Amino acid sequence: MEQKTSTAIDLKETAELLRGNDNFVIICHASPDGDTLGGAYALCGALQKLQKRAKVLVPEAPSKRFDYLQSGIEKQEFDEDFVITVDVADSALLGCLEDQYKSPDLCIDHHVSNTGYAKKLLLDSDAAAACEVVYELIKTLGSDIINADIAACLYTGISTDTGCFRFSNTTAKSHRITAELIEYGFDCSGLSYLLFDMRTQERIELERKALESVEFHFGGRCAMITLTSTMLNAADDEDINAISSLPRQIDGVEAGVTFKEKEAGIWKVSIRTKNYMNAQIICAKFGGGGHQRAAGCRITRNIEECKAMILTEIERHI
Amino acid sequence: MEQKTSTAIDLKETAELLRGNDNFVIICHASPDGDTLGGAYALCGALQKLQKRAKVLVPEAPSKRFDYLQSGIEKQEFDEDFVITVDVADSALLGCLEDQYKSPDLCIDHHVSNTGYAKKLLLDSDAAAACEVVYELIKTLGSDIINADIAACLYTGISTDTGCFRFSNTTAKSHRITAELIEYGFDCSGLSYLLFDMRTQERIELERKALESVEFHFGGRCAMITLTSTMLNAADDEDINAISSLPRQIDGVEAGVTFKEKEAGIWKVSIRTKNYMNAQIICAKFGGGGHQRAAGCRITRNIEECKAMILTEIERHI
Repeated sequence: MEQKTSTAIDLKETAELLRGNDNFVIICHASPDGDTLGGAYALCGALQKLQKRAKVLVPEAPSKRFDYLQSGIEKQEFDEDFVITVDVADSALLGCLEDQYKSPDLCIDHHVSNTGYAKKLLLDSDAAAACEVVYELIKTLGSDIINADIAACLYTGISTDTGCFRFSNTTAKSHRITAELIEYGFDCSGLSYLLFDMRTQERIELERKALESVEFHFGGRCAMITLTSTMLNAADDEDINAISSLPRQIDGVEAGVTFKEKEAGIWKVSIRTKNYMNAQIICAKFGGGGHQRAAGCRITRNIEECKAMILTEIERHI
Repeated sequence: MEQKTSTAIDLKETAELLRGNDNFVIICHASPDGDTLGGAYALCGALQKLQKRAKVLVPEAPSKRFDYLQSGIEKQEFDEDFVITVDVADSALLGCLEDQYKSPDLCIDHHVSNTGYAKKLLLDSDAAAACEVVYELIKTLGSDIINADIAACLYTGISTDTGCFRFSNTTAKSHRITAELIEYGFDCSGLSYLLFDMRTQERIELERKALESVEFHFGGRCAMITLTSTMLNAADDEDINAISSLPRQIDGVEAGVTFKEKEAGIWKVSIRTKNYMNAQIICAKFGGGGHQRAAGCRITRNIEECKAMILTEIERHI
């Protein structure tokens, strides 16, 4: 087994390391979200402002709504000398880029679970988002680097990873950094519309069908929605994720379950719990995993059998 | 006609005024929202901490989700000597309390449209919420007054009036004040769930029906939803407001229209526009009013005629 141990470095050491190198490639994780993308493009913009050559690599095409992140970036072609990952807790999360980049020179992250796969690691596990760490790194690199474009990238990561400042990872520091970013003058409310309010016609259609499929069990303590492959085809990942959080949001629901038909007859089950139930234990029964309040598994059965199997397990714990 | 002119006072003068008086009644506006309620209860808690007697009066019962605002308040009975309104731009907004309290001693507000109906006025029209003004007032009264209960009240007003930091009124200051409030240690993510994520089963049902009713016109630039009186009966005001914002959220929609049947055959039409259309002009055609981007009117016709009338007007401007 390969030994994995990053050397932990602080903001000043990281800033020195970046100043002493050039020709950077900055890599995001697969299923790229606002934090990995925002952090990568912010850092890329900052390095370019320092007259370095830098580019971003993403293992999968991001949702179109993130296109604006590239607006301050110059497209540069060069041979890579220094590899950085942002918001990537484990090299396995690099997807199709894993083989080529499994030992990057530097990882910038906020996951306490970071596996130490990079040579050097700048980690702040108290940060709500990798973008909070990138913000502090850019400030350490220089007080005059952040501009409206970079601020928009960093805001994207902080606001999406905190669920628009609603999740329990949100701290006073998240708000203080955001206050400073707003003063750089990007269109914060326009961005928020794009990130949190805008719904495509396809999303509206998916929501309608999801709501039609809601069923309640155990006196309203469990809510389930079912999304068939036909329903999922037209939707993008961001939409599907948003809808998966719906059942748990219902008043009185402890266990919210979403059944997603990945291929005909193969159901991806996502369980989110509110206060006391351990979703991980239930999903582990079916070979899945996750956290206490959010876990998933895969079941190959028809939907009625699949529901019955999950309900039997939930009944033991609810 | 009655002359209306408040004397404008600043934070220090307002603090002096409060210190020199006692037996306060603090009044909210009708259709009470998080800002008027949060500001009133925060101020009430602060005055009680200063050994003053204070109580809050609300012209209509607030949504049950705001019950927690009273948790730090002692119920006190006394004869009122000093009347304060919070977040009330005009005495007409006092509803059933207008006759008794139309000339309060002090109004604390953030609406540029404040009509000056109170004897003294503490107004900051740059503030995103009245709660930002109340926050600064309490800080002026003393540095050790705010506690977790008061912080939760102030957070309620700031977060709801800014649409959870998404609307264009959100400023760097809104985030800085929020950062400080979070440090008082109230359950910020629990509160955010209650304010922004929790949906009752009735709300889910209303959303489902609203989405079923969506129709598009003018190549997707206009979206309409229809809520009949049967659909509205089970829902509370907060839910109905949230759903009214749905049509405009759809990608490509310039004019989002919601038809709400107040009584059989009487339709309340709410028009919200995104970038260029003037909703006020359209509603004025039917005797209604409002702002450029959000306006309303009332039409007494069957729903098909009602829709046709609105569509004819929208066609001229879209």
